[in-house]
Amino acid sequence: MKQKAVVVFSGGQGSTTCLIQALKRYDEVHCLTFDYGQRNREEIDVARHLATTLRVTAHKVLDITVLNELALSPRMPLSLPAVAIGALPGALPSTQAGRHLLFLTLAALYAYQVQARTVITGVGETDFSGQAQERDPLVDAMSQTLALGMAYPLTIQTPLRGLSKAHTWAMADAYKQLNLVRYQTLTCVNGLLGSGCGQCTACHRRAQGLEQYLANQRPLRNDFLERLNGC
Amino acid sequence: MKQKAVVVFSGGQGSTTCLIQALKRYDEVHCLTFDYGQRNREEIDVARHLATTLRVTAHKVLDITVLNELALSPRMPLSLPAVAIGALPGALPSTQAGRHLLFLTLAALYAYQVQARTVITGVGETDFSGQAQERDPLVDAMSQTLALGMAYPLTIQTPLRGLSKAHTWAMADAYKQLNLVRYQTLTCVNGLLGSGCGQCTACHRRAQGLEQYLANQRPLRNDFLERLNGC
Repeated sequence: MKQKAVVVFSGGQGSTTCLIQALKRYDEVHCLTFDYGQRNREEIDVARHLATTLRVTAHKVLDITVLNELALSPRMPLSLPAVAIGALPGALPSTQAGRHLLFLTLAALYAYQVQARTVITGVGETDFSGQAQERDPLVDAMSQTLALGMAYPLTIQTPLRGLSKAHTWAMADAYKQLNLVRYQTLTCVNGLLGSGCGQCTACHRRAQGLEQYLANQRPLRNDFLERLNGC
Repeated sequence: MKQKAVVVFSGGQGSTTCLIQALKRYDEVHCLTFDYGQRNREEIDVARHLATTLRVTAHKVLDITVLNELALSPRMPLSLPAVAIGALPGALPSTQAGRHLLFLTLAALYAYQVQARTVITGVGETDFSGQAQERDPLVDAMSQTLALGMAYPLTIQTPLRGLSKAHTWAMADAYKQLNLVRYQTLTCVNGLLGSGCGQCTACHRRAQGLEQYLANQRPLRNDFLERLNGC
């Protein structure tokens, strides 16, 4: 039987790195990108371009802008409370919001349709390696709920869980895609590719992680590979 | 502080009965109806009409037809596997599908927006009273996941859990709305109000439950009230 996975794919550094790993591990990789009216429309184009470049099995861009109606004010689109995913003591406040609940539910429904048993999401990076718990209680609860609700054996994977930004760069490099992730993904709040505007928090975190990685490539890559073998 | 609830509201017998109860119990009742491209467009109109008649605080009809894209085939819209909710030994196969996962997630997001702490859903009726477990493992898992994911104390209530169709009629009558539920709700697969086409399974179940109730009004209503007091 073909091993299939669904990757929740934003075209950012994290989810692209997850996608690269998934392509090594699964026979079919189906990407799902949410168009929720993000301020940077470039994100969607970047995701499409990367999906084509990396030759994924399928890439669905799902327009869920209508769900912004759930917000009372147009200035508060999908403005849900910050979730526990990856938000651990010592970590920066997570930029991910409660919308992950919705994204994972939709990804699970998509996984059912394409008969994939795994949903992969790039949440769970921390700023400091090794400080994260092994498992995320929310992801565990979500996995269980989805499997119960659909009577379908589905697993949610968070490959970046507990990795530092520097280790996420090590991960891309371990799969020989450092340059693709470095130059063709979009993390910048101002919608600029690669190293971005250089001014926003996302650019700062990305640059700092990359700098740390480039200064310690071998040990960080080895860390990552050891962790991988430990799994 | 005002007590608020969100009712997942289809305009059918079950969710209308839940709504009637909620209106007695909460200061504000916000109804959420999903337009997922149901074959019977009448359902939406019926829900709107009932929401107005019953004077709910707010009624949102959320167009989620776009989510049918998650289905691979246009002939399989939101055709998710049947879920465990209410599907117990001895019960008819549930007509509710995995889409409940999605509906409850969306309802939870809406509840967050209107700052309601309770989501009420009409799932969980059985054909035979008293055979259902006290609690539904899926609803429990879902409650926990949603509360974790939103860092918000949300409860999912299933007032019809374990009630027979006859007891659901008793419930409507206990709130003095038997006639409204009998004549103004829509359960019929063929989209006809009240007693419906009389031919489909939904109409048969509805009629059978009503007949049982009308033959045993007092004991069934007492059953319901006792159960209510036991809660």
